Amino acid sequence: MERADAELYVEVQQFYAEQMPLLEERRLEEFLETFTEDCVLEHIPFGWRFDGREDLLKEMSARRGDASAPRVEETSARRARDENVPYYNGLVYRYWFDRLRVVPDGDTLRTRYQAMVSMTDSDGKVSFEPTTVVEDELVRRDGRLLTRSRTVTHDSARWADKIHNPS
Amino acid sequence: MERADAELYVEVQQFYAEQMPLLEERRLEEFLETFTEDCVLEHIPFGWRFDGREDLLKEMSARRGDASAPRVEETSARRARDENVPYYNGLVYRYWFDRLRVVPDGDTLRTRYQAMVSMTDSDGKVSFEPTTVVEDELVRRDGRLLTRSRTVTHDSARWADKIHNPS
Amino acid sequence: MERADAELYVEVQQFYAEQMPLLEERRLEEFLETFTEDCVLEHIPFGWRFDGREDLLKEMSARRGDASAPRVEETSARRARDENVPYYNGLVYRYWFDRLRVVPDGDTLRTRYQAMVSMTDSDGKVSFEPTTVVEDELVRRDGRLLTRSRTVTHDSARWADKIHNPS
Repeated sequence: MERADAELYVEVQQFYAEQMPLLEERRLEEFLETFTEDCVLEHIPFGWRFDGREDLLKEMSARRGDASAPRVEETSARRARDENVPYYNGLVYRYWFDRLRVVPDGDTLRTRYQAMVSMTDSDGKVSFEPTTVVEDELVRRDGRLLTRSRTVTHDSARWADKIHNPS
Repeated sequence: MERADAELYVEVQQFYAEQMPLLEERRLEEFLETFTEDCVLEHIPFGWRFDGREDLLKEMSARRGDASAPRVEETSARRARDENVPYYNGLVYRYWFDRLRVVPDGDTLRTRYQAMVSMTDSDGKVSFEPTTVVEDELVRRDGRLLTRSRTVTHDSARWADKIHNPS
Repeated sequence: MERADAELYVEVQQFYAEQMPLLEERRLEEFLETFTEDCVLEHIPFGWRFDGREDLLKEMSARRGDASAPRVEETSARRARDENVPYYNGLVYRYWFDRLRVVPDGDTLRTRYQAMVSMTDSDGKVSFEPTTVVEDELVRRDGRLLTRSRTVTHDSARWADKIHNPS
């Protein structure tokens, strides 16, 4: 298995250091510009799959909410989708990555990392979403890295039914 | 926006890997030697601002306490300052960083990262302070990096009133 | 103190990004192939020390359990050893590292990092083991890095008596 050299590895670290805060700051259109037009994002095991920027933008616009809004009532990922609830209202969420692997594969970079989401509410209470392992396919367009696919494998099979914001 | 190359990025990672454990180990004078004499540290939103090593040392000496002392009674950052309490007595605290960005800007490096503080008490209980985003200005003196300014933006506006060590 | 250059530092980051998931996935024999035959792993303060791959494999086979098994009843590290209990049954555990230092020392690399273990149960509940500081000695054999020794210093002296999986 070929490994990334330092320049490439650090470039990928910097890519995520710029990409993920856009999601945390709810700058959704800018976040999606770091994905290809035909990107795919899938959650396993469960089945939610989003195809293309437009599909993703629609989902994220409905779900990502506003950190300064009143805190969303207790809900789960599944229920928030069923009831069309802004899942992250009243929460500052941040992604924590570790174990980044970067493997060149032709024109593509295959990355793998573990991720954990912290949620800080307006009173400063911190909680965590179940941990995950993420596999991305990155491509280069006009010199910039973009995410073509992201597969999030949740460490708890019942993650989508967990109350993510217990009072 | 210019980005750091691998050598510089890794140098900054190593700088923090040496700087922050000094704070965790309460080696305050050595910690402050990694800041410039005229450093500024500011917490937002709130208003505490410390100007220069001496000011910082005075605050940290009063507040950082001792991991092997009996655990401090329930308190908040604000109350600990008002009552001059060693805020971290009985706690091992560690900083966790992610999303490091390093942007050269003339003679300065502007860094940005998210940070979370874990606290482990003597029984092994782990809790977390509200997450933050930190922006540093680093300068080079005699070949070594030093922090000239640090601005900590807390994700919870009420962070300073949170009980940080619930029993 | 000599520091690692970017290529070496990133190589070590990638080494851990490949090594630690093997432990998380309970691929114990493959995990131990990333250690030298005569490796030593020690927990401080406490005294458990394992000498050599065989000793470590025996301990880990008895203790690491199975993420898909029913969750182990409340126990501590010490009790799990006394009663020969698979400590991590029903839990997905992941190691989070930060503050990696890499210092070449002759034929050896001395690394130092802080580590935290998250545990996600099948319902998605997340909890954390007390934080630690780890010091490794890495050596190169046939071009590959291997761990020759690992010393885990726990931030709580009573870590081994903590209930690690509270209901």
